[in-house]
Amino acid sequence: MSDNNRQVKLIQRPEGEPAPDIFEVAEAPMPEPGEGEFLVKVLYLSVDPAMRGWMNAGRSYIEPVELGDVMRAGAIGRVISSRNSAFSEGDYVSGMFGVQHYAVSDGKGVHTVDPSIAPLERYLGVLGMPGMTAYFGLLDVGQPKEGDTVLVSGAAGAVGATVGQIAKIKGCTAVGIAGGEDKCNFAREVGFDDVVDYKAEPAGKGIKRACPKGVDVYFDNVGGEILEGALSRLRLNARVVLCGAISQYNNADALVGPRNYMALLVNRARMEGFVVFDYAKRYGEAAREMAQWIQEGKLQAKEHVVHGIDDFQKHLMMLFRGENFGKLVIKVQDD
Amino acid sequence: MSDNNRQVKLIQRPEGEPAPDIFEVAEAPMPEPGEGEFLVKVLYLSVDPAMRGWMNAGRSYIEPVELGDVMRAGAIGRVISSRNSAFSEGDYVSGMFGVQHYAVSDGKGVHTVDPSIAPLERYLGVLGMPGMTAYFGLLDVGQPKEGDTVLVSGAAGAVGATVGQIAKIKGCTAVGIAGGEDKCNFAREVGFDDVVDYKAEPAGKGIKRACPKGVDVYFDNVGGEILEGALSRLRLNARVVLCGAISQYNNADALVGPRNYMALLVNRARMEGFVVFDYAKRYGEAAREMAQWIQEGKLQAKEHVVHGIDDFQKHLMMLFRGENFGKLVIKVQDD
Repeated sequence: MSDNNRQVKLIQRPEGEPAPDIFEVAEAPMPEPGEGEFLVKVLYLSVDPAMRGWMNAGRSYIEPVELGDVMRAGAIGRVISSRNSAFSEGDYVSGMFGVQHYAVSDGKGVHTVDPSIAPLERYLGVLGMPGMTAYFGLLDVGQPKEGDTVLVSGAAGAVGATVGQIAKIKGCTAVGIAGGEDKCNFAREVGFDDVVDYKAEPAGKGIKRACPKGVDVYFDNVGGEILEGALSRLRLNARVVLCGAISQYNNADALVGPRNYMALLVNRARMEGFVVFDYAKRYGEAAREMAQWIQEGKLQAKEHVVHGIDDFQKHLMMLFRGENFGKLVIKVQDD
Repeated sequence: MSDNNRQVKLIQRPEGEPAPDIFEVAEAPMPEPGEGEFLVKVLYLSVDPAMRGWMNAGRSYIEPVELGDVMRAGAIGRVISSRNSAFSEGDYVSGMFGVQHYAVSDGKGVHTVDPSIAPLERYLGVLGMPGMTAYFGLLDVGQPKEGDTVLVSGAAGAVGATVGQIAKIKGCTAVGIAGGEDKCNFAREVGFDDVVDYKAEPAGKGIKRACPKGVDVYFDNVGGEILEGALSRLRLNARVVLCGAISQYNNADALVGPRNYMALLVNRARMEGFVVFDYAKRYGEAAREMAQWIQEGKLQAKEHVVHGIDDFQKHLMMLFRGENFGKLVIKVQDD
């Protein structure tokens, strides 16, 4: 065990795309757990679109990362020493441990995970925040009914691929939107009935072709023109679930709202945002149901694993460039 | 009784603002009611923002007005001859009789109104479509709770003024947005707790001042920058009711969507459109409750009456320029 803790700190607020110089990789002394705390060896980190928002100053659903602080990240790790009776040495745990090799925690927001049921990285994917986001966003906010057409952007991403599969489990037609042949093939493999490749045809045209009856539920991970394309095909009483707007996150100058938002009026439809943390009390319920679906072969999980925190900015840009297939996870170090 | 029927026909689709030459005033022969039909002398016409949408070709919540047809309008009239057993000579009726002096109807969508309870023009206002729009839009879609802050744009308009008063009746704080001192005074007089004059201060700044706790329900009649200002002040779980977007109706080139629509996500809020016709079965219930409120002095009604259909285009532009106080109604002819 090293004497030092390698960390990635946010030292500058990004303007537009997160540039390499907004982060600093540095060594810090190994932290010491105080009374009621424990020390975690960080093994896997989650790379999420939401990270872009955390880097901005100002009001959001969660406090921004302060300049000079370790970049926030969801993680899986192993407890290597503990002064907290709820967590013992050797426990595998999930929590917001940040982009670093070692973290001290008081246990708030931390829960144990079982490596015998699923590989550790899966607890950052289908059995973690992206899976919860898909589950509650689709089922609670989107409220799909059997026979509905459910349209999902970011269909090859961690959230989107899970939304499509849950839609199928619920008896809906699932149509995905993704960029490029490889991503579209990936979306088809996980079970989407049809896929729109927005790099091969205009999104609006593709949505019209793939959703001939219109769209009952649109699960939006991207915003921009694809959101507009979906709005223009809404059915009566449709539900638009706002999960993210990755096309807009790095758009510092001119944020673009959906020009045809009045389609919501014409179609008596709603557009609703949600934040997965609000459902924290029900994560257990969702994880049990999804684990069951995985066991029955109805729900696939796929992680895209990259290595090392020194390249954190590059890994993050992979995500914004849409180069990942499935949930993007950084393997921090060997167990 | 004249032998001719004076009519205003739509002869061209507008681009941007409705220009005078898109309408034609013409005389037609007096129509004859067939079996099951009746003849109505049109007395009052409703001038509505929705008219702008009816003039466009293409899909909306209602068929467009065809070129060469009499312009569609809600109206109040008196039955002057009838071959329909449900409607008798002398009955006062409400229906979509169009911009003309006389209309034939088969009774579909027509109901009688009682001139002894309220002046006829009021059945185009608080006891008509604008009142129903305010009632169902606020109560069913906006779902205000006691103590909520309800923000309303177009606060001096027929719908907005009624929304504000119903919000007060339901125990909410009602904040209006209107343009110019006269309109703001009018909104205060009908009972808004505070009013933002978007011509005197930036809407966003005014909304922040007048809604220090944020906005629980925003009833949007205008779209554009005012919608953006409201979105930036939403509270958690806020509801945005999309009723219209008068700022956008004549904007042929570049429709503008709300750039900060992701405020819906941050605040777990929803934006939902509705069309008042969907509530037709419940109009009676709403009218009874609102008539009661009027009797109790809790709900005021005000109509802005202009004269004659020959100036229909000018009357319509009054509406789009925001020059009316209360419900804009055309008196067509003496009873």
